[in-house]
Amino acid sequence: MIEPSKPETADAKLTCGMVGGGEGAFIGDVHRRVLAFDGLATLVSGAFSRDFDNTLATGKRLGLERSRLYESYEVMATEEGKRSDKIDFVVIVTPNHLHYPITKAFLENGISVVCDKPFVFTSKEAEELTKIARERKLLVCVTYTYNGYPMAKQAKRMIANGEIGDVRFVSAEYIQEWLSTPVEREGNRQAAWRTDPKQTGLSSSVGDIGTHTENIVSYLTGLEIESVCARLDTFVEGRRLDDNASIMVNFKGGARGLYWVSQVAVGHDNDLRIRIVGSKGSIEWAQEDPNYLKVSYLDKPSTILSRGRDKMYPEAEAYSRVPGGHPEGYYEAFANVYRSFCTALAKSEAGETIDAAVADFPDIDAGSRGVRFIERCVESSKKGGAWVSF
Amino acid sequence: MIEPSKPETADAKLTCGMVGGGEGAFIGDVHRRVLAFDGLATLVSGAFSRDFDNTLATGKRLGLERSRLYESYEVMATEEGKRSDKIDFVVIVTPNHLHYPITKAFLENGISVVCDKPFVFTSKEAEELTKIARERKLLVCVTYTYNGYPMAKQAKRMIANGEIGDVRFVSAEYIQEWLSTPVEREGNRQAAWRTDPKQTGLSSSVGDIGTHTENIVSYLTGLEIESVCARLDTFVEGRRLDDNASIMVNFKGGARGLYWVSQVAVGHDNDLRIRIVGSKGSIEWAQEDPNYLKVSYLDKPSTILSRGRDKMYPEAEAYSRVPGGHPEGYYEAFANVYRSFCTALAKSEAGETIDAAVADFPDIDAGSRGVRFIERCVESSKKGGAWVSF
Amino acid sequence: MIEPSKPETADAKLTCGMVGGGEGAFIGDVHRRVLAFDGLATLVSGAFSRDFDNTLATGKRLGLERSRLYESYEVMATEEGKRSDKIDFVVIVTPNHLHYPITKAFLENGISVVCDKPFVFTSKEAEELTKIARERKLLVCVTYTYNGYPMAKQAKRMIANGEIGDVRFVSAEYIQEWLSTPVEREGNRQAAWRTDPKQTGLSSSVGDIGTHTENIVSYLTGLEIESVCARLDTFVEGRRLDDNASIMVNFKGGARGLYWVSQVAVGHDNDLRIRIVGSKGSIEWAQEDPNYLKVSYLDKPSTILSRGRDKMYPEAEAYSRVPGGHPEGYYEAFANVYRSFCTALAKSEAGETIDAAVADFPDIDAGSRGVRFIERCVESSKKGGAWVSF
Amino acid sequence: MIEPSKPETADAKLTCGMVGGGEGAFIGDVHRRVLAFDGLATLVSGAFSRDFDNTLATGKRLGLERSRLYESYEVMATEEGKRSDKIDFVVIVTPNHLHYPITKAFLENGISVVCDKPFVFTSKEAEELTKIARERKLLVCVTYTYNGYPMAKQAKRMIANGEIGDVRFVSAEYIQEWLSTPVEREGNRQAAWRTDPKQTGLSSSVGDIGTHTENIVSYLTGLEIESVCARLDTFVEGRRLDDNASIMVNFKGGARGLYWVSQVAVGHDNDLRIRIVGSKGSIEWAQEDPNYLKVSYLDKPSTILSRGRDKMYPEAEAYSRVPGGHPEGYYEAFANVYRSFCTALAKSEAGETIDAAVADFPDIDAGSRGVRFIERCVESSKKGGAWVSF
Repeated sequence: MIEPSKPETADAKLTCGMVGGGEGAFIGDVHRRVLAFDGLATLVSGAFSRDFDNTLATGKRLGLERSRLYESYEVMATEEGKRSDKIDFVVIVTPNHLHYPITKAFLENGISVVCDKPFVFTSKEAEELTKIARERKLLVCVTYTYNGYPMAKQAKRMIANGEIGDVRFVSAEYIQEWLSTPVEREGNRQAAWRTDPKQTGLSSSVGDIGTHTENIVSYLTGLEIESVCARLDTFVEGRRLDDNASIMVNFKGGARGLYWVSQVAVGHDNDLRIRIVGSKGSIEWAQEDPNYLKVSYLDKPSTILSRGRDKMYPEAEAYSRVPGGHPEGYYEAFANVYRSFCTALAKSEAGETIDAAVADFPDIDAGSRGVRFIERCVESSKKGGAWVSF
Repeated sequence: MIEPSKPETADAKLTCGMVGGGEGAFIGDVHRRVLAFDGLATLVSGAFSRDFDNTLATGKRLGLERSRLYESYEVMATEEGKRSDKIDFVVIVTPNHLHYPITKAFLENGISVVCDKPFVFTSKEAEELTKIARERKLLVCVTYTYNGYPMAKQAKRMIANGEIGDVRFVSAEYIQEWLSTPVEREGNRQAAWRTDPKQTGLSSSVGDIGTHTENIVSYLTGLEIESVCARLDTFVEGRRLDDNASIMVNFKGGARGLYWVSQVAVGHDNDLRIRIVGSKGSIEWAQEDPNYLKVSYLDKPSTILSRGRDKMYPEAEAYSRVPGGHPEGYYEAFANVYRSFCTALAKSEAGETIDAAVADFPDIDAGSRGVRFIERCVESSKKGGAWVSF
Repeated sequence: MIEPSKPETADAKLTCGMVGGGEGAFIGDVHRRVLAFDGLATLVSGAFSRDFDNTLATGKRLGLERSRLYESYEVMATEEGKRSDKIDFVVIVTPNHLHYPITKAFLENGISVVCDKPFVFTSKEAEELTKIARERKLLVCVTYTYNGYPMAKQAKRMIANGEIGDVRFVSAEYIQEWLSTPVEREGNRQAAWRTDPKQTGLSSSVGDIGTHTENIVSYLTGLEIESVCARLDTFVEGRRLDDNASIMVNFKGGARGLYWVSQVAVGHDNDLRIRIVGSKGSIEWAQEDPNYLKVSYLDKPSTILSRGRDKMYPEAEAYSRVPGGHPEGYYEAFANVYRSFCTALAKSEAGETIDAAVADFPDIDAGSRGVRFIERCVESSKKGGAWVSF
Repeated sequence: MIEPSKPETADAKLTCGMVGGGEGAFIGDVHRRVLAFDGLATLVSGAFSRDFDNTLATGKRLGLERSRLYESYEVMATEEGKRSDKIDFVVIVTPNHLHYPITKAFLENGISVVCDKPFVFTSKEAEELTKIARERKLLVCVTYTYNGYPMAKQAKRMIANGEIGDVRFVSAEYIQEWLSTPVEREGNRQAAWRTDPKQTGLSSSVGDIGTHTENIVSYLTGLEIESVCARLDTFVEGRRLDDNASIMVNFKGGARGLYWVSQVAVGHDNDLRIRIVGSKGSIEWAQEDPNYLKVSYLDKPSTILSRGRDKMYPEAEAYSRVPGGHPEGYYEAFANVYRSFCTALAKSEAGETIDAAVADFPDIDAGSRGVRFIERCVESSKKGGAWVSF
């Protein structure tokens, strides 16, 4: 066993609550595990379900006090907002259509927010929430998990430092197979709400995974989108939203992007893969093999950077937990998003300034940009694949 | 060593000539080696260079008779056309702008043609040549090498037989790095003519490798293009043609395609990679690892088919030469294209009908389609990435 | 996001203590995180260091009560043993030479044990501890992490069910690079104690990673070793123990094994890789890419099983936490070892019988076998690579 | 298409004959194709079969003169030996037991030899032939194909130049699946003679592929074997020879080797893989992916060298034929062995001295060493896996 990077555990413990994530839910469990993993925040309250019995059962199983289990998110926001020991933040793990009202309720009661992606349904909603958060000096984190991976953080720094020259082209794909057949009509609950416009919004494939793609490209490159040309497909008959999309992106400054997102790509589980081509080199990263970066340069053999083995930027190294060859995965990336957020929140609450390295989490601007990305792609596609300004 | 598939060698020997491919050229040597490899045709005449001394030297080195070395392709076409033992076909390995006049000259003198890709500069030229070839019952082969790979042939049959259901989406990319810097201004002769509109035509990246991409997708799927939306980029300052392209394709019948071709993708040598997604499965093939197919199905583990090991369709198996695990590569694929062409030509000359299995080579229609693909992509890009009918 | 397998959280909470793992240690932190991850046991007491100030600081940071922080493991074993709410088990994360006395102290005070591997120094010690544990009906878990991976569990069941026929040959390798240079003389503390016979025992490479290799092979195949022939090398001059070993294994019943373990294999991080060849098929698993199994059969294309995507045995599926394509890694495997152990311990304490599926953790027999493996390999090597009975 | 390395074609044409390789044989066809590929030697005579009708038919198909087709190798050796235009060398592609008498016959008639591996049955035979060849100044090439790969040649030069420091350990494996079942009793002719001691010699797995392994390791590292410890297994019931072997090798100077060869490794086609660990770096090469080298160094990211892309030693570069990303495979490697041999033979016949770079083919010493390797491994195994001097 080689000497690991020093594990860092924040001393300042925060408390939090959760809306959604009751018995039978998946993602709420993920959030709770990763909170426990680093011990950065303690879950103390919740409105886990519209069914209060479910909330009570979940709360009991988790060892929460009965008095901090609430019948609805509205009550929870109001009641927690009144407490002197109110939660530092709430975690929102409901279907998409509830993100807006719940976020608003908690922000208005002075409570910061961690919200699943995509953030809300419209740019207008996003702007409204941004205004409230800014006025109240509250933080909002939209859990784009993948920028929590240490090698994503490493790639970001390499690119920012000009190691591959000027970025010319970004090829990004996020392809899955789980909607290859009409599972939403065969009892798959996840599929049912994710393909239902009322619960999921304007788009399925762009909304669910296109936003992840937009986020990670933006995170890695810092490029700003100027215009998009999108073609959304619905391959499964009777499906109410798209399940596949091809997107051309023009970035400000001349770089170009090409994205493919799919929920019908048979044989692909959660295949997010990014290739960034610069004038002097290129970087490739794949979420399913997240501990490595393929880095190529002109006139030199291509290299494979291994997390934990090879020299990394300190801002990336700090998020690497175990030695090289001991695989880190999805949970650790997720925990890293929380670590960044909790560290920033603790500093913010202490009145400290938050620098870029500390604020290394997907914030409300990232969330809002994702919402606009959905809107613009859907608009372009409806216009027959026309180019639309971003 | 396991028992190999039986090597097949055509008995009927053909003769051929070559235009281009003199001392210092590369691709002419490849053509000559693969002709010798299978012994299907004997090179007997040539006009290898505009410099007759070069032609004479090349001819001498290759052991050709002095009387069948010609000062120009015009003379060669006329003189060979007159001979009772005239060559069965000519191989054209010149820069692109000469493909049209040379092909025309030989066809008009009753000689079949093997021509490098892309075929000619305009659809009008292609149509004219097609008319001549049909009238004279001559064959034209445009050497799209990659459909010569046994696993490409296997994938084609699997798809045609419905093994992956209806094709929904095709992701194709052909990315290289060799034009990442302005090498055409630094003495690279290949780069100089390939980025010169006069010698190479309307496009560099689409013309050189976009056509390969179009061809292999068409070969594998049998899909016909309905419309395209293309964005051609020139990333290297001062370059006169594009060096990167993003192309959305709508196929007749509802399938979709997304292509990326690049000559500035640092770290990529000759990275042609095709993923074909169907309603029941998907197939992935990569030219740089050509002896394998990744085949996925719904509800079953993904599989890796190995050439020479796993059961293949007879039409594909026939092109596999050595047992599994003994890699076959570029030369063998190239030789397979010739094998198909020579077999078809011998049959054609013998007055036999050529069925689809025998005619398994890229013919004049494939060449013409490539020309149209270049035209349409350039047109779309000039219109700002508008959709244009194919 | 596809529907995940149901996360299972034990209801019965256990309590535990820890010996070792104070400030600056690595593996103690890993143990604590994975305990928190599943919430299976709560850490309530500790003797984290020989330096009591360190113990106090660590305990304070972890929020433990001052009264359950102890000056030494001896005191801790005695005092905890007297309490009505004594810890259910102790976690031992010290250098190897302390495993024996600490395990003995806690067992004698009626407390079950989780101990790092390798277990103890001699088979005699192992036998003594086994006797005590059996008499007291206490459980001992030796943390061979890698059998916690779901795909290792899947492979085990496939083999047990005859899916690859009779096992003929096992190729196993565990290769690392971290001792390629004399880092033990350059300030690397891990290296210092791991190459010190007094602290680490008879062997470095066989002791540290050879035992992991022996364990995972035994876990996967159920084969019992009959004899070994080992060659231990010390490639770094001045090193006091071996840093590389080649081991031939004869199993009872005729199967054969060949193991390579190395701490000087430049370019390899933590590269544990197992290939099991049977009469009808073969299975390959690699710790650095743990979410997949390569499974081959005669006369069928090779397959890649993906955790979370493909059908698994229920006993393996139960340890898979997130959907396919969301990588699980080292921490999750480690947590799975604890999950198995805590579930078994809870049942054992409740007087229930523990069946094989529940007892799916590396127990004291596994630990003892590892000790014998070290002894026999060292003996064989000292005899010049002679075969010795196991 | 990037600028390729200059193809080199020898001017001096040689002539050759062949013994074995009649209708229905496989490897004779491979030899003939690769001879044609580079045009280095012309096949002019043959005794292709014990059945003279087969010889006549094969000769006719290949266009050979009737007068140079012989009823037996004995007649051929004598008759060719008398001619003023006698063949420069003979190619022997018969089962192993005939290698010795045929080689002897041709050497004694003043004709150089290319012989399939393994060379002969006994070291005594090898010594006798070596003596004759030396006296007559004739060359013998034993076709160990794999050192013909450019990346093997590159690895050899890197190691010789100290790029990975002192070689410490070599892990080599050559595993196949084709004898997993008793195919020799089910009509597989290759299997029948390869598992028949009379035709194949002392060993099947060590003889057929163990010798390849020994050769490539020796070629790459230049290490000399001091002693071996081998365990030969016969896993398929009723088989008369071994089908799997584990071999420990001690090299002079302290380096160590560990080899696994198998003909029952289900899922593996022709999987020859070599890893060479040095004090400063390591190199990995796999025959099934032959265009790349994985090269690792201490304290630097691992690299992937790509044939045709990355800078190579001139002696290796000279054998690379097509640009990077255009795969070269088995045939090209085989042709390279002939290229080296024919170049050396032409120089030898011209009375020139042959330097190491030119003599880069597996010669009679390599062949003899392979024979001794079989003998020693079989001896060790018969002694129960004892160590025996080499």
